[in-house]
Amino acid sequence: MTIDAGGTAVTEEAVGSLGAGTDPRLRELLTGLIRHLHDFARETRLTQEEWERAIGFLTATGQTCTDTRQEFILLSDVLGLSMLVETLNADRGPGATESTVLGPFHMTESPVRELGADIDLVGSGEPCVVSGRVLSQDGTPLPGAVLDVWQADADGFYDVQQPDLQPPGNGRGLFTADAAGRFWFRTCVPSPYPIPTDGPVGDLLRATGRHPYRPAHIHFIATAEGHAPVTTHIFVAGSDYLDSDAVFAVKSSLVEDFATTDDPSLAREFGIPNPFRHAQFDLVLTPGAKA
Amino acid sequence: MTIDAGGTAVTEEAVGSLGAGTDPRLRELLTGLIRHLHDFARETRLTQEEWERAIGFLTATGQTCTDTRQEFILLSDVLGLSMLVETLNADRGPGATESTVLGPFHMTESPVRELGADIDLVGSGEPCVVSGRVLSQDGTPLPGAVLDVWQADADGFYDVQQPDLQPPGNGRGLFTADAAGRFWFRTCVPSPYPIPTDGPVGDLLRATGRHPYRPAHIHFIATAEGHAPVTTHIFVAGSDYLDSDAVFAVKSSLVEDFATTDDPSLAREFGIPNPFRHAQFDLVLTPGAKA
Repeated sequence: MTIDAGGTAVTEEAVGSLGAGTDPRLRELLTGLIRHLHDFARETRLTQEEWERAIGFLTATGQTCTDTRQEFILLSDVLGLSMLVETLNADRGPGATESTVLGPFHMTESPVRELGADIDLVGSGEPCVVSGRVLSQDGTPLPGAVLDVWQADADGFYDVQQPDLQPPGNGRGLFTADAAGRFWFRTCVPSPYPIPTDGPVGDLLRATGRHPYRPAHIHFIATAEGHAPVTTHIFVAGSDYLDSDAVFAVKSSLVEDFATTDDPSLAREFGIPNPFRHAQFDLVLTPGAKA
Repeated sequence: MTIDAGGTAVTEEAVGSLGAGTDPRLRELLTGLIRHLHDFARETRLTQEEWERAIGFLTATGQTCTDTRQEFILLSDVLGLSMLVETLNADRGPGATESTVLGPFHMTESPVRELGADIDLVGSGEPCVVSGRVLSQDGTPLPGAVLDVWQADADGFYDVQQPDLQPPGNGRGLFTADAAGRFWFRTCVPSPYPIPTDGPVGDLLRATGRHPYRPAHIHFIATAEGHAPVTTHIFVAGSDYLDSDAVFAVKSSLVEDFATTDDPSLAREFGIPNPFRHAQFDLVLTPGAKA
């Protein structure tokens, strides 16, 4: 290799090492990755010691991952990369429900539940009803649409984070919309919560003076035949941290009122004490082959 | 957050989230990292599926690391990043021995050995002598300079890769130069070898049609009081792969003849059968406070 103080020769050598038979998209991705990684090191004059710390940080991040914890997704989340990738791929069309990040806690299969079931198996939080319809972009209801729902409990923990305190599937449910595209279920009003801070990502947040909190939300993945699925959240209007989400995932169209509703007959229908908190919204999917 | 299809808002939000009390250098590094990472995703229009594969790849890379294996260093090596960082920090001055990458196998303390000792504890390869002097940039010998030496065996494996076949410390030694700055030790002539290909980095090499081989070499770290240490290799002249090192670490000044020497009295002095292979070179350090 030709030696040059700026190291451009090694950049070209690394890009040039990709073989002729490499898949064109993989070549495009790796070429971009190598160039940006090298430009980053050149522009910041990265030292050996900083490189060693970065190696140690990435290793610890990988080793913090388990079957129920995904520290690399968390890292991508707090660097804004997850939300960026989400935004770049969110060409959903006018009127369609906006998407947002998957997050690191969709790690286990949600249990199949009947419409109306309560996903708060512990009963620790303020009970509420979540209901609405799954619609196509033109307003047509989508019977048989499937909603995968997951949320933290009233203390801000997911079931997989507290296997000794929460039964598996607490806060989770897989629902199928009825013949009119309607869905409804019971849960507790979610709370803001900190993302896990006992790993490398927590160290990063502390070193940069950032709080770890996310505003209160419920996760959804909605799928329906002939439509592109949407991965999104519903955020609780008025929650703390709506303007400083640790993972940058808030979109204003996704903020919903969990309004206190005083309607004894509706309460009876949902099997919940009156008055009750009630979030109502439709999930609108874009027709397309991506499903 | 303001929504824009190119996602520039989330980039600015992520950069802006770094708190006022953040260490200035850490802020510089993270700002550069976030901008390059986001530009990479924007320019390549990274898809959700590709992002998920990247998360899986990085997780597997971290989980492949053990006390004796560093897959993230290997990844940095095959992307040319290690050699680039090395080059950016290699301001060693004219005449000084050039540095090259540390590599992933400097994971264990080299055993202290007497000058002249044989680091090939198994005796499997072609025996040779390595000798020379440690000098300051002006040619002054550096008595008491310390050489940390490590190499693969004749089959191309380091001791830590074969705990059942090689005794710990095989191919390693920590030597102190004599009063004239001289060093000498016995070993076997190293062979080209493949970097480990049974992990994620191996998958990457296969997917890009790259061979995993490194040309034959011996690793050195030389330290001496009042001098900047140097991390380098000596490559065996004529070795295969000198022009296509999988980790881009070859510098022509580091290629040395392991010449066949027919000198019975010198052979007796080194305690090696005549004739013998002999590599002779000086390691030249730069005065400075970095030691």
